[in-house]
Amino acid sequence: MTELETMGAAAKAAERKLSIANTKTKNEALNAICASLLDNKARILAANAEDMKAARENGLKPAFQDRLLLTEERIDGIAKGVSDVEALPDPVGEVISMNDSPTGMTIGKKRVPLGVIGIIFESRPNVTVDAAVLCLKSGNACILRGGKEAIRSNTVLTDLMREALEKAGLPADCVALVHDTSRESAQELMSLRGYVDVLIPRGGAGLIDSVVQNATVPVIETGRGNCHVYVDGDADLEMAANIVENAKCSRPSVCNAIETLLVAEPVAEKFLPLVLARLKKYNVTLRCDEKALKILGDVAIPATETDWGTEYDDYILAVKVVSGIDEAMNHIARYGSGHSEAIITNDYAKSRRFLHEVDAAAVYVNASTRFTDGGEFGLGAEIGISTQKLHARGPMGLKELTSCKYVIYGNGQKS
Amino acid sequence: MTELETMGAAAKAAERKLSIANTKTKNEALNAICASLLDNKARILAANAEDMKAARENGLKPAFQDRLLLTEERIDGIAKGVSDVEALPDPVGEVISMNDSPTGMTIGKKRVPLGVIGIIFESRPNVTVDAAVLCLKSGNACILRGGKEAIRSNTVLTDLMREALEKAGLPADCVALVHDTSRESAQELMSLRGYVDVLIPRGGAGLIDSVVQNATVPVIETGRGNCHVYVDGDADLEMAANIVENAKCSRPSVCNAIETLLVAEPVAEKFLPLVLARLKKYNVTLRCDEKALKILGDVAIPATETDWGTEYDDYILAVKVVSGIDEAMNHIARYGSGHSEAIITNDYAKSRRFLHEVDAAAVYVNASTRFTDGGEFGLGAEIGISTQKLHARGPMGLKELTSCKYVIYGNGQKS
Repeated sequence: MTELETMGAAAKAAERKLSIANTKTKNEALNAICASLLDNKARILAANAEDMKAARENGLKPAFQDRLLLTEERIDGIAKGVSDVEALPDPVGEVISMNDSPTGMTIGKKRVPLGVIGIIFESRPNVTVDAAVLCLKSGNACILRGGKEAIRSNTVLTDLMREALEKAGLPADCVALVHDTSRESAQELMSLRGYVDVLIPRGGAGLIDSVVQNATVPVIETGRGNCHVYVDGDADLEMAANIVENAKCSRPSVCNAIETLLVAEPVAEKFLPLVLARLKKYNVTLRCDEKALKILGDVAIPATETDWGTEYDDYILAVKVVSGIDEAMNHIARYGSGHSEAIITNDYAKSRRFLHEVDAAAVYVNASTRFTDGGEFGLGAEIGISTQKLHARGPMGLKELTSCKYVIYGNGQKS
Repeated sequence: MTELETMGAAAKAAERKLSIANTKTKNEALNAICASLLDNKARILAANAEDMKAARENGLKPAFQDRLLLTEERIDGIAKGVSDVEALPDPVGEVISMNDSPTGMTIGKKRVPLGVIGIIFESRPNVTVDAAVLCLKSGNACILRGGKEAIRSNTVLTDLMREALEKAGLPADCVALVHDTSRESAQELMSLRGYVDVLIPRGGAGLIDSVVQNATVPVIETGRGNCHVYVDGDADLEMAANIVENAKCSRPSVCNAIETLLVAEPVAEKFLPLVLARLKKYNVTLRCDEKALKILGDVAIPATETDWGTEYDDYILAVKVVSGIDEAMNHIARYGSGHSEAIITNDYAKSRRFLHEVDAAAVYVNASTRFTDGGEFGLGAEIGISTQKLHARGPMGLKELTSCKYVIYGNGQKS
């Protein structure tokens, strides 16, 4: 057995106990984790300081260093997140349906944990705790494979969680960290069939592509977002400008930010200068099709075919003038990633068509795509945003970390 | 573009129309398909006769030939299946939840089709129609890749469905058949990202393994079943014998038949001869552990480690004497495939433990595992039995062929 197989077998054994633990026990474990994080701030910060030192020595970008950094306040935030998950209702055990069959059996469908969840993520050490406690609350064991830059922070955080689990009478192996942060360990985790029931990769396009190519365990893809706002001919242009500014500039690095603005031809001449005025203060680069370029002139640069399919995650916005809702929806169907799409319009029929016909996890009328988030959608917490259609679509909360089983009460029935 | 990519692009375009078609239109298409099958029996039977001729010339097994064979009655049965699906409620469009958010948006979660479904299956031509109409009713386009032995039958059946679709005003490309039945075409279909949203393989272990290794599109694994009956010390032994006979012998080739019998030691001496008497008339081979062998003597043969993990799909039963429910559940956790598991007992606490602790798609008390079926579970029809935990578990009906999307009604909200 490889090291990871041994870890997988231990997680599987731990999960058999965790999956049937009652809510009280699971909440006691979360409570112990929360307390342990607050009690061990110094230990966590010391490990994080070493990660930060290495990051500086390796010349990692300031934005990257900021994601890696833990402070007292950030640890408080992580601990608060653990309490929040503790307060959420336990999804496990809900009987979704139950009926008597014609032959007198009682057949029920019950919510159960998924099993062992593998999570591959990058540098943010808060994900280590966030992901683990969501798994724990939903009765799942997890094997965490974080980025190498955060390995010292992650090791301490995982050790603390494992100690807390044992204190609460649950197996430490409900949470495991892969200490080998090589590419090979990630690839092995993706194909740990028999031990890993579901893999959730959280990271950039490179990670997702690697998972798609190499995974042999079932996967939930997350995080790709090529989102659009379509400003219709019947839009309130002031509202549209507000929403475009918010959707592009409030946090360009996230997956629910927009990458392309589609504008209906009849209002393009009036609307585009309005948008330009809003985006100037963020120094947004506008990459425009011919028609938009004619209106915006020298402040914009020409877009190429590649632009329509690119997730910039930056202060760059592709702009295209379309004839109307049909061309807009065709463009979205062709280039969109199925994440979040918005129309700005006051026309009833067009709002209905857009909601009905656009195929994405979240479809908006007159609101910013930035709302695609577990908290906003009432899930309480979020382990990621699924961009596939299988199992879960959009923000995933505790329910999305469960499966079901049929329970059948008979009295001797045979087929 | 390869031939399959062209087919994928056509299916994707067709699916955009089908996914937003109303129930009336979809039912009209199903109605036209049903009528066309009945009107064209001669054409279907002629093509099937050629498939059968080739099968005989190639010396295919009688059981295989029987699966391939179509008769007037079997076509009536297929057509009846189409009407049955027409009569089922349309899963698409159901709003699962809808709430006003704190900022005044209305956020709903709505059931939508999965998109384009790839289905790889073996020789039974009825699957071509069964699978296609379940996809159609749930708003999904499908790309069918059947076995080479049925290619002539499948071609006619698909042509008839495509004609009927056009008659009902839907694109013919909602249903497509891959005419190239090489291994390569199956492998290409498994990795047709951007065109195929979900792949459902229906076939033996070889197909499932190939899909697991090669697929890059999301997959629902189906059909593996290493199922157990555990006869507890507190069982009604007459009931237990009835259930074991039914679960093993009523149709050994299917995935919900049992492969291993676990018997509690205190009743083994009394129960095993009872089982033997029941199974004798089917010529069931019993592969036994030491303790069972001692009881059964020469009529049985010794089991090896391999037996516990083998899906015989045949008149063979592995038998193991266990100390009680804990050893039984440990055995099932180790060797079971998570399909269907049963306990026979009159003990309340043990029935509850078994239902709670055994991790399988269907867990039974005092009933045969053979009930794991879409019809029995009230799904109306079934496209397969999922043996994974992601997306769907157990029998999959129309609802399991859907995903969801969030629809958000705002009035200018920004984050």
